[in-house]
Amino acid sequence: MKELTESKLSSKQVFSGRLLDVRSDEVSLPDGAVSTREYIRHPGAVVIVPVLPSEEILLIHQFRYPMGISEIEIPAGKIDQGERPEETLHRELKEETGYRAERTTFLTEIHPCIGYSDEKMWLYLAEDLKEGTSGGDEDEFIELMPTPLEEALKMIMYGQITDVKAIIGLFWVDKVRRGEWQPRDL
Amino acid sequence: MKELTESKLSSKQVFSGRLLDVRSDEVSLPDGAVSTREYIRHPGAVVIVPVLPSEEILLIHQFRYPMGISEIEIPAGKIDQGERPEETLHRELKEETGYRAERTTFLTEIHPCIGYSDEKMWLYLAEDLKEGTSGGDEDEFIELMPTPLEEALKMIMYGQITDVKAIIGLFWVDKVRRGEWQPRDL
Repeated sequence: MKELTESKLSSKQVFSGRLLDVRSDEVSLPDGAVSTREYIRHPGAVVIVPVLPSEEILLIHQFRYPMGISEIEIPAGKIDQGERPEETLHRELKEETGYRAERTTFLTEIHPCIGYSDEKMWLYLAEDLKEGTSGGDEDEFIELMPTPLEEALKMIMYGQITDVKAIIGLFWVDKVRRGEWQPRDL
Repeated sequence: MKELTESKLSSKQVFSGRLLDVRSDEVSLPDGAVSTREYIRHPGAVVIVPVLPSEEILLIHQFRYPMGISEIEIPAGKIDQGERPEETLHRELKEETGYRAERTTFLTEIHPCIGYSDEKMWLYLAEDLKEGTSGGDEDEFIELMPTPLEEALKMIMYGQITDVKAIIGLFWVDKVRRGEWQPRDL
């Protein structure tokens, strides 16, 4: 393989807000030239495919301000400082849906935005769900949408689900249900 | 469905760099409370699943500075001002791989980063590829990796492909090759 690495020469924070930490780094390219790389620093997130006892997938519906539309998604949230991804999973699942999962399986890590963010997402399957009470972030408004997998896959095909983490989670469960893929840690 | 819309009260640009345009808006929530939304404004991008005459998928390998690693991806690029997505497709495919496609099919739109970016990606299949010469961005260093679909899917399962646009493009082609899905515009 070719040597493709870019090396950091200097780094500065150009914006720090309530949510976003934006960096601008000067880098040395593989041919020795110098360029700039601007990107978001992100603590990482956990994404959950919750499967109800009915075998339906617990999709959620949420307004997404940057896009200006409501997106059909699966539960997810940022990892708090000092939290392990498994802890984030249980906290976010409860906050966003009210459910707790008695069985969780790690599926994979994905990178949603490699051009301008270092965000990594840990994708989990959550099964044996028990109903509880939700207690969400005070500025999150979420609607639950239990949906059979086959119908959710059609919603992807017809462009009704466009959120990448939901698409990947649903495709993954499809592979597992067909018996074609096994979770990696089994 | 519940009313979930958030309305803009005010908007300001908090950073404008070579690549990133960062906004911070004050918004009114569905319950009337006021909150802040920080996000990237992005012109949109085109993502291409190039299929070689050998039926292999033309993956690419590229260092991604924000992640600090080389990612296995498929060709993609930002839409230039005034460009139609089909034009971006042909420009980026040539720049990144040297190939031109005699047949292209729109597959879907995806949103990679709905929490903090308005980026939309147009996903296309590119077939009947003819070899040409690549002429890339001067600060892009890209290696071509023609790969059979079955092998590429295994690379997803084993976590060797983590880039969301590549994962979704490959899953989609899998559905099309199995005859389970048809492109929407047929």
